[in-house]
Amino acid sequence: MRNHAAGSPHKAVTIYDISRLAGVSPATVSRVLSGSARVSEAKRKAVLQAVQDSGFLPNALAQSLASSRTHTIGFLVPDIKNPYFSSIYYHVEILASQNGYAVLLANSRGAFENESRILQALTGRRVDAIVFMGGRIDAFPCSAAGIAELEKFNRMVPLLLTSRVEGTSIPQLCSREDGAVLALMRHLSEQGCRTFAILGGAEDVSVLHRRRALMLACGCRFGMVTQPKWALTDTGFSIESGRQAAAQLLQCGELPDAVCCINDMVAAGALQQLRSDGLQIPQDLLLTGFDGEVFSEVVDPGITTAAFDYPDFAQRIFDLLMRGIHQEPCAPVTELYPHLTIRGSTRREAP
Amino acid sequence: MRNHAAGSPHKAVTIYDISRLAGVSPATVSRVLSGSARVSEAKRKAVLQAVQDSGFLPNALAQSLASSRTHTIGFLVPDIKNPYFSSIYYHVEILASQNGYAVLLANSRGAFENESRILQALTGRRVDAIVFMGGRIDAFPCSAAGIAELEKFNRMVPLLLTSRVEGTSIPQLCSREDGAVLALMRHLSEQGCRTFAILGGAEDVSVLHRRRALMLACGCRFGMVTQPKWALTDTGFSIESGRQAAAQLLQCGELPDAVCCINDMVAAGALQQLRSDGLQIPQDLLLTGFDGEVFSEVVDPGITTAAFDYPDFAQRIFDLLMRGIHQEPCAPVTELYPHLTIRGSTRREAP
Repeated sequence: MRNHAAGSPHKAVTIYDISRLAGVSPATVSRVLSGSARVSEAKRKAVLQAVQDSGFLPNALAQSLASSRTHTIGFLVPDIKNPYFSSIYYHVEILASQNGYAVLLANSRGAFENESRILQALTGRRVDAIVFMGGRIDAFPCSAAGIAELEKFNRMVPLLLTSRVEGTSIPQLCSREDGAVLALMRHLSEQGCRTFAILGGAEDVSVLHRRRALMLACGCRFGMVTQPKWALTDTGFSIESGRQAAAQLLQCGELPDAVCCINDMVAAGALQQLRSDGLQIPQDLLLTGFDGEVFSEVVDPGITTAAFDYPDFAQRIFDLLMRGIHQEPCAPVTELYPHLTIRGSTRREAP
Repeated sequence: MRNHAAGSPHKAVTIYDISRLAGVSPATVSRVLSGSARVSEAKRKAVLQAVQDSGFLPNALAQSLASSRTHTIGFLVPDIKNPYFSSIYYHVEILASQNGYAVLLANSRGAFENESRILQALTGRRVDAIVFMGGRIDAFPCSAAGIAELEKFNRMVPLLLTSRVEGTSIPQLCSREDGAVLALMRHLSEQGCRTFAILGGAEDVSVLHRRRALMLACGCRFGMVTQPKWALTDTGFSIESGRQAAAQLLQCGELPDAVCCINDMVAAGALQQLRSDGLQIPQDLLLTGFDGEVFSEVVDPGITTAAFDYPDFAQRIFDLLMRGIHQEPCAPVTELYPHLTIRGSTRREAP
């Protein structure tokens, strides 16, 4: 990138450059910039002109050291390619930017040791707060050592966890899904569903335990049952894992009336597999997802899902971060409610 | 987030805390941390134990002020929800993290004034380099004022532009698409295509001009033609714009053999619309996308596309950033080559 005249590499303009350009002392520049009245009008104008010509920006680092605030937020996600995380990040970053904050975004890839390294790096950079998504806080069961480490970092910088984690007082924003799952299972029942499979997830991730328990309980309430052979619930959360789980389901012989997927990515992969094996959705099989990601909208038919309101999700994260930064009281657990969104994958035309 | 004992808000551990915990002077702590030999073994052990117990981290800000490097990269995208940008960011951030860099990610939403504000904020934060994607550098024509502003910032911090921009020596990484489009049009010709439509894009965005010109020229070479009524090329780049452009195409009466979309999001939306109107892809109509995003894989049938190798794309960005930061020479323009990926949307079964 050396594309400047020799001897003129990229460099930040300093107060000394302004001093030289304006023909005044560095102390005078400093007085002008700090708004002191003890400067002649001619010198003041010369300094302001030099500031404008040179593109001088006050050094945010020096200001941060003086104020002990960096106006920087750390944001840790497993994988920003996952649209669940990119939707939330997008809206949080815009709110942050509008309020003078910049956001450091790191991908942990869900690995404990990466999370530790990122927490250490963000804390070393003196971020004002950290949003922690996925990974260890979604583990089932949560490791005590993992939580203890979060507690250690939370003593240095306010953390916000976006899952329900027992045994810690670190603030948590989590989804309360009983209403949406009840509405989902009622809707399936109304579409004539009597039996259902559950696809996707992992036994060591809490979201499977939460959503599976709700699906079983709410299904039962409407007289719907599942079978052990239809519980393909340790296959993962990705599109590819949805394809694989659906392929396994097709080998069961008997099929259920509906397939309830752990999230929209699994549902999108399952839809692709079921269709490529000649099944029609929703005529042969009803299909549901979870989260309200873009994948539920872009496939054909669209996938019925329990959708989060992502702008609202982001606003709550940002509000909780500001409370943490300004040491204002907040509830230990804040709940979000996804809402049933009915699309073509469960909507049978009247016969 | 006040969830600590009263009087114990979040705070960073300082060298003075270590001094108190270890029962030694602050100067001794400093000598131990800087590796000086002039400290007794007992005091050294006491300091290291206190460091471990307290979670002390050296202040990256103070280190940055001393070194004039922040080991921070700025990354500006229009919208991280777009999988093209999130795929690139994901891989760049992992490389950055492995090399001790953190990345500030901002969404410009493609607006000139947001880009200016973000450049100013990132420069004020003394990032070591900035990746600039989308927005003004994709405009057709590029505004001279927009480029002049980039030049101004590039004098303070090395920029990297991920599009081809005439009239500036700021380093550029851009895609060279003639080979992929030639392969794409040859493939369509081999599938029996004689006529094609072009869907999506915007007349004030350069990617439309580049890809349209290549499609027309390469199509011509294989005896394929288009018609003015099939040029639905000022409809946007989103999934929704793909749906709308396809709906307009269906009102043309006569349909082409193939629909070439400006990107995969437009192709995914078009596929959804065409199917909902009863057309079968690829039996009734061939369909292609561009970029190799996840949307091209998740829909059914999968969409034939010109795909980028995102890990390689990210590696090149990171290498160019390091050259910029270390003031090493680099080519003014580095080119990337997408490759034809054939999927079901253009693969007709043998009759």
